[in-house]
Amino acid sequence: MKIVVTGAAGFLGRALTARLLASSADPEDRFVFIDRAPVVAADPRVRCVTGDLGDAATLDELVAGAQVLYHLAAMAGGAAESDYAGSRKVNLEASLLLLERAAGESGRMRFVYASSIAVFGEPLPAHIDDATCPRPSMTYGAHKLMVSVALCNLTRLQRLDGFALHLPGLVARPRAGAGMKSAFMSDVFHAMAHAEPYVLPTGAEATAWFMSRPRCVDNLIHAGTMAPPPEGAPRSLTLPVVRASMREVVGALSQHTRADASLVEFQPDAKLEAQFGRLPPLTAAWAESLGFRSDGSVQALVANALRDAGYAA
Amino acid sequence: MKIVVTGAAGFLGRALTARLLASSADPEDRFVFIDRAPVVAADPRVRCVTGDLGDAATLDELVAGAQVLYHLAAMAGGAAESDYAGSRKVNLEASLLLLERAAGESGRMRFVYASSIAVFGEPLPAHIDDATCPRPSMTYGAHKLMVSVALCNLTRLQRLDGFALHLPGLVARPRAGAGMKSAFMSDVFHAMAHAEPYVLPTGAEATAWFMSRPRCVDNLIHAGTMAPPPEGAPRSLTLPVVRASMREVVGALSQHTRADASLVEFQPDAKLEAQFGRLPPLTAAWAESLGFRSDGSVQALVANALRDAGYAA
Repeated sequence: MKIVVTGAAGFLGRALTARLLASSADPEDRFVFIDRAPVVAADPRVRCVTGDLGDAATLDELVAGAQVLYHLAAMAGGAAESDYAGSRKVNLEASLLLLERAAGESGRMRFVYASSIAVFGEPLPAHIDDATCPRPSMTYGAHKLMVSVALCNLTRLQRLDGFALHLPGLVARPRAGAGMKSAFMSDVFHAMAHAEPYVLPTGAEATAWFMSRPRCVDNLIHAGTMAPPPEGAPRSLTLPVVRASMREVVGALSQHTRADASLVEFQPDAKLEAQFGRLPPLTAAWAESLGFRSDGSVQALVANALRDAGYAA
Repeated sequence: MKIVVTGAAGFLGRALTARLLASSADPEDRFVFIDRAPVVAADPRVRCVTGDLGDAATLDELVAGAQVLYHLAAMAGGAAESDYAGSRKVNLEASLLLLERAAGESGRMRFVYASSIAVFGEPLPAHIDDATCPRPSMTYGAHKLMVSVALCNLTRLQRLDGFALHLPGLVARPRAGAGMKSAFMSDVFHAMAHAEPYVLPTGAEATAWFMSRPRCVDNLIHAGTMAPPPEGAPRSLTLPVVRASMREVVGALSQHTRADASLVEFQPDAKLEAQFGRLPPLTAAWAESLGFRSDGSVQALVANALRDAGYAA
């Protein structure tokens, strides 16, 4: 089995690659981990590659013969919004080339693409389900949607076996995530774990969609290993999420960390709240029927995220 | 005023360019008509350019300073389905480059993109309206959708002023249209006009969406000249169409041409009928509110198409 991961040094990539290695007992398994930043993996089965996807002349060889490819590499939403050309190159063109390289292989490679809920733009409808039409309102979401359409088409053409997962906000990212406008969703976890005061840029009743990193890794690996659904079934999936108000999240954080909930102050920023704090109920029936799962509850979300971030629960 | 048309030598392009010239009284107007096939226009205000969009090193200069660009050039659906790389180059990459060139100009160029109802794939829902989520089931439709997403994003970024029009089947195309799986929709017009027998590859009750070429030109020019809608309004439009059964179309053709309706025999091809002959009711409220129009009735459709094709009504 040969497994390729792009964006392997990122927040999600580090956890995915560690889990892949830990869960593989076969000494014949081979892994290729790619990132612009150096990837570290002390396992003789791993080949670590430092480089841009667009620049790598050797990408064909890296992808050749892979059974599963996890494509996580991306320019983040905030950065993409202020750098159209950069997002065009990384989020669109490099992703399309990677898809087409994978499609050029025989054997219908399983291609798991980390898309984003940013495919749904503002204003969001009152409820989101599998019939909701994506109307991105950021360059990041537009490029994620375009790649998802290309993936579905190449899967329909039976040239690969792809899934595009529209991932929600992951917690808890390290503080000061690069280009992440939604950093507050994670930063409040770190502040509470350290019993530090924190100013949330939303109201207490602002609602967002959450998934812990370990649950996201569960879902990625499920997408990488599950049996293919019936032919013609949608391959662009909105995942089930925990939808919670910031008040609920802060409450659960207070219980788990024993930090005082009043350490958190709410100072709504209208623009950020509009973008990240008014997320409506979401039904992900198709993804659930395929076995994808949310963290299940705010309590479980917070426990999973704190444990994953290295804080004692 | 400088107006650019790509695909100017095609079925739709020939009618659009003729109308643009006929309706312009200003000797200062400038036109650039581009196609891979030679474009003929005996008007000193027109610059005709023969070449591929992707190859034209001079495209920047051709587009520079234009107020309106009509982008019609495309590889047709059937050809695109059997030539992924060709569609990728023409329908996706060249279109994205053209969009980005236009977006690089100051003054928010009006960019009218001939998208297609092929963005809606099979199986189609029981009814299509402005909320219907496109799920293309052909490479042609996937690439049209991707370009429409890019156009909406660049319009949102205020770098251009675009409209993507999802066009239905146009009638009456010349016989033996290149790569057009839906050729029968037009061929039956020519057969009836010549009182020749014709075998339709659908049942009599097969329903399709139709628009005459002159009505389509009306809609394109409306998109090229109308005032911009409020900011944030959708720029990807499904146009109102005439939805009719083949029996109704043949009946109207018989009335208008005085050819016997029994000249047409129905021999359904299951695959063609599934793709083109089971089109559900379509509501295009948003496009109608902006002033886009269908032919209005089967009778008007047939009259418009026959007159446009040079047959006496």
